[in-house]
Amino acid sequence: MALIVQKYGGTSVGNPDRIKNVAARVAKYHAQGDQVVVVVSAMSGVTDSLIKLAKEIMPLPAEREMDMLLATGEQTTIALTAMALHSLGVNAVSLTGAQAGIVTDGVHTKAKISNITPQKVHQHLDAGNVVIVAGFQGQTIEGQITTLGRGGSDLSAIALAAALKADLCQIYTDVDGVYTADPRIVPAARKLQEVSYDEMLELASLGAKVMQSRSVEFAKKFKVVFEVRSSLNDNPGTIVKEETNSMEGVVVRGVSLDKNQAKVTLVGIPDKPGMAARVFKALGDAAVNVDMIVQNVSHGTGTPATDLSFTMDKPDLLKAKKVIDGLKAELAFREVIANEAIGKLSIVGVGMRSHTGVAGKMFDVLAKEGVNIDMISTSEIKISVVIDLTKGEQAMRAVHAAFIG
Amino acid sequence: MALIVQKYGGTSVGNPDRIKNVAARVAKYHAQGDQVVVVVSAMSGVTDSLIKLAKEIMPLPAEREMDMLLATGEQTTIALTAMALHSLGVNAVSLTGAQAGIVTDGVHTKAKISNITPQKVHQHLDAGNVVIVAGFQGQTIEGQITTLGRGGSDLSAIALAAALKADLCQIYTDVDGVYTADPRIVPAARKLQEVSYDEMLELASLGAKVMQSRSVEFAKKFKVVFEVRSSLNDNPGTIVKEETNSMEGVVVRGVSLDKNQAKVTLVGIPDKPGMAARVFKALGDAAVNVDMIVQNVSHGTGTPATDLSFTMDKPDLLKAKKVIDGLKAELAFREVIANEAIGKLSIVGVGMRSHTGVAGKMFDVLAKEGVNIDMISTSEIKISVVIDLTKGEQAMRAVHAAFIG
Repeated sequence: MALIVQKYGGTSVGNPDRIKNVAARVAKYHAQGDQVVVVVSAMSGVTDSLIKLAKEIMPLPAEREMDMLLATGEQTTIALTAMALHSLGVNAVSLTGAQAGIVTDGVHTKAKISNITPQKVHQHLDAGNVVIVAGFQGQTIEGQITTLGRGGSDLSAIALAAALKADLCQIYTDVDGVYTADPRIVPAARKLQEVSYDEMLELASLGAKVMQSRSVEFAKKFKVVFEVRSSLNDNPGTIVKEETNSMEGVVVRGVSLDKNQAKVTLVGIPDKPGMAARVFKALGDAAVNVDMIVQNVSHGTGTPATDLSFTMDKPDLLKAKKVIDGLKAELAFREVIANEAIGKLSIVGVGMRSHTGVAGKMFDVLAKEGVNIDMISTSEIKISVVIDLTKGEQAMRAVHAAFIG
Repeated sequence: MALIVQKYGGTSVGNPDRIKNVAARVAKYHAQGDQVVVVVSAMSGVTDSLIKLAKEIMPLPAEREMDMLLATGEQTTIALTAMALHSLGVNAVSLTGAQAGIVTDGVHTKAKISNITPQKVHQHLDAGNVVIVAGFQGQTIEGQITTLGRGGSDLSAIALAAALKADLCQIYTDVDGVYTADPRIVPAARKLQEVSYDEMLELASLGAKVMQSRSVEFAKKFKVVFEVRSSLNDNPGTIVKEETNSMEGVVVRGVSLDKNQAKVTLVGIPDKPGMAARVFKALGDAAVNVDMIVQNVSHGTGTPATDLSFTMDKPDLLKAKKVIDGLKAELAFREVIANEAIGKLSIVGVGMRSHTGVAGKMFDVLAKEGVNIDMISTSEIKISVVIDLTKGEQAMRAVHAAFIG
């Protein structure tokens, strides 16, 4: 008998029939004697309609009230899921985040879980029930309803698995698991049997849409082994866990391409101390999240000048341009060039720590494909390059073929 | 400075614009220095959609889960109402029934309020907030979410007014107050300035749709004076309060006509002990709510036989017929006649206690209108007659003219 936490996202519970499918899957585990805790999101579309309703009242609703409003989405799903289990003859009880003992700080709409007191969940489990918990939500110690922000239901599931000392945590989604690359772009991509937390974190931050970084970070911190798998079939998914020695044997675990990047270049900026600090302080103040930064060597005659480039998510580009335009008089750069037609191609693998020549091999592959490298950034387990967006997918396939097959 | 509890029903908060109208009204009271607690229902239609969703999962959902589901309706409204007040620059905080300290028994879908601990409501009021409370819901001492059944939001408002020792409790609805008769039937009907709890109870049970009996009973028990008034205008409504001496001066406070009645007559039932007991025991076991009962004097030759008639709400007629048919062999009555074409016409007034000849005057009025009286039932402050449905409205106007004007 195992204690299993299963999380189902908004698409998996998107309508009554899908909720019945979820119930059927849960019932199977329950029938084989497992204790099952089910964490569900709001039915797909519900959260958006609630947000729309709120915006009809006022453009910027108070975050406390947004939490009060949005928490109804998951509460609806838990009740319906419990009913679906009842209709299969399975005992089930629904609990809101608050009732399940999920305590958070008071930062509404993006609260952090501070602790979980899972006594009630255990009681209901021990009484033979499947326990359905509303994901994405909790309450403060003062009893205020809070929500956890994007990817919050994954976080609820992983935190509950940690608090309950679950044997297994399954994150059900609409993909089969974590792939070596996006199969829509790289037909040769294959599903990974396992991946380390650090690799998963890099892949998440590089545009692989499976999970938000903070859920993975939480799992890493509390050593929660979890499985990403599909709610549409019975295929085994990908196990995400601590790095093992055998993982080092694989140099590159995955290849990702982030098309949601933009680049700004300040051309002919005087090469003197404090210039870069001024730029990035101003961008930081405007909440522009800068990713990569490259500064060229000085060039030109007379006062030495250089080019300064940086990247950010596309939606931040306008804000960044405004900041930079405001600095033109002060910093005396010659011109500013914005480029949205870029892609960030990355390879990720803990094996890079113990293998040399990985970067050289990647650059060589790109050169042979005629792909020019614009910017480079590396970490211990990752190499990212900024390239022309139009060559992004071709480059991704070539790099995948060279490192993974 | 007064403490006011205001309750707005589903129609009054039926869409974002109406919620804004409610907020504007609340803001006016707040601006004049009153402390305001607002109790709201689910937006009209929301509860029905949730029930429909549940029925798609299973025909008879568990009541605990229905409460979990339905409670989201009011939770949505409180958040939106708080936002609407914020948009007017008024500080406001929403509270679920549980957060407002409304504690109930554990009878899901029709819980009774057992007590209210309003400390949190007071705290938020003292901090200068309008407090928006979800009507219709509470929680058990174990923390289970419950709902109060039909008319539950009125009950929430009146119970909160009692617990908060409010100076005023206003029930906003889509009518101007309590009328001497339904103005759609009796053009001469006028709005009552005040009405006693007992009169209001009789009127409620006789088909006046303004409020459920149990909210009035609760108000009577805890001496909560409340006002029924319209959310569509600023007209003063009707004050419902304890009977005063001056009220006795009015013989008939109101006239009502209940068209939702049906009658069953057992013709030729042997007139011997135990027959009536057998009939009404069987009806009670089948949960048929019998209203009036009339047994004629014996007639016929040989074994004395009589006719036994009783009335009930129309929806119960089929059930009642089934019960009676099942007794045919045992009770040996000659035939059973069902009649849905009846109306129950009633006059209500605490003044009847000290005035004589009221019944006689009513029967006289009906006789002059050519209306035959089928059954009669009286209480200390009420006289009801069952008459032909087709003559119901004409009779109602005549009786209203004779007693009220």
